[in-house]
Amino acid sequence: MSDALAAFLDLGWSCLECGAVDAEAPARFPCLATVSPEGWPEARSVALRRADRPAGELEVHTDPASDKVAALRANPRAALHIWEPTLRLQLRLSVTVALLTGEAARNRWDDIPDEARRSYGKTPRQGAVIPGPFSYEITAAFEDFAVLLCRLHQIDLVELHENHRRATYQAENDWAGDKLGFIDQKRSQVAVG
Amino acid sequence: MSDALAAFLDLGWSCLECGAVDAEAPARFPCLATVSPEGWPEARSVALRRADRPAGELEVHTDPASDKVAALRANPRAALHIWEPTLRLQLRLSVTVALLTGEAARNRWDDIPDEARRSYGKTPRQGAVIPGPFSYEITAAFEDFAVLLCRLHQIDLVELHENHRRATYQAENDWAGDKLGFIDQKRSQVAVG
Repeated sequence: MSDALAAFLDLGWSCLECGAVDAEAPARFPCLATVSPEGWPEARSVALRRADRPAGELEVHTDPASDKVAALRANPRAALHIWEPTLRLQLRLSVTVALLTGEAARNRWDDIPDEARRSYGKTPRQGAVIPGPFSYEITAAFEDFAVLLCRLHQIDLVELHENHRRATYQAENDWAGDKLGFIDQKRSQVAVG
Repeated sequence: MSDALAAFLDLGWSCLECGAVDAEAPARFPCLATVSPEGWPEARSVALRRADRPAGELEVHTDPASDKVAALRANPRAALHIWEPTLRLQLRLSVTVALLTGEAARNRWDDIPDEARRSYGKTPRQGAVIPGPFSYEITAAFEDFAVLLCRLHQIDLVELHENHRRATYQAENDWAGDKLGFIDQKRSQVAVG
């Protein structure tokens, strides 16, 4: 890979890694696009919880009863979109999503602070039999927790500056970028819409 | 429709109408999600060019050679996603997209200032026979222009404040919202990821 291609990919990963650790970073809240069981594209904000470059993985936490989980059970392909306004960088990521629930999600759950765990609870399901308020609270919250383990297939980067550049990297050729270069104003419009 | 439901929908449309006229508004650049011919969800920023509430239409301009047009030819369903940080409002729109090119797009083209038209031009296609530089420039630009006419089916709004609220509105019942209310912190987490 050329130095320029490698440096551009490094920039993209820096952005993702910031999002995973900094709640104020633009990459903290990507837009996750999935396909519903009825074939409709769907998009919503999610919170990026982990970015692991060596593994080529990103992680999002959610509720297994959410629409996005129903969509991913039917079609595990997803896209993540981020616009980083300071860098003027658009990241478009293609991923396949493995859904971890129950014991498979236990180690992630153990790392979540008590306060944050409340995000994954729900009001009691109607008709549910619960032994008491304390055990209900703990049990229900963990049951309402799912990990979306996003395995990266492709990273597409577009940077809009006076001279724009765009590159696409794929897992199948070990993230060697297959194009890079200054693209003119006209062409970049195609890239970003 | 209750006053509260109607007012919430008004808020959503205000946001869209701002995006259509103000290049600095958050709704100027929605994320457009489509499904590729191979079944992959795709997402990218687009520029909102028109928001017509009476017609239930939004409009985006693009290049007919773009990936999004190929996706929409195969599956005209799309989603638009906007996060409005000042309002703390997420808009999720389900649309079907009619593609207008050539003479069907002529009246939009006529409204675009000369400077902005350059966005829809391309470098010359290899092998193209052109009568001269002037006619080529005009012709090529108009040929590279397409309108994505997005007909709204559903508007889903989530507002994150101390008390969150969410409502979904559908064209098929004349935009009467089918739910609204304060939802607790836990439930709202499901809504936004």
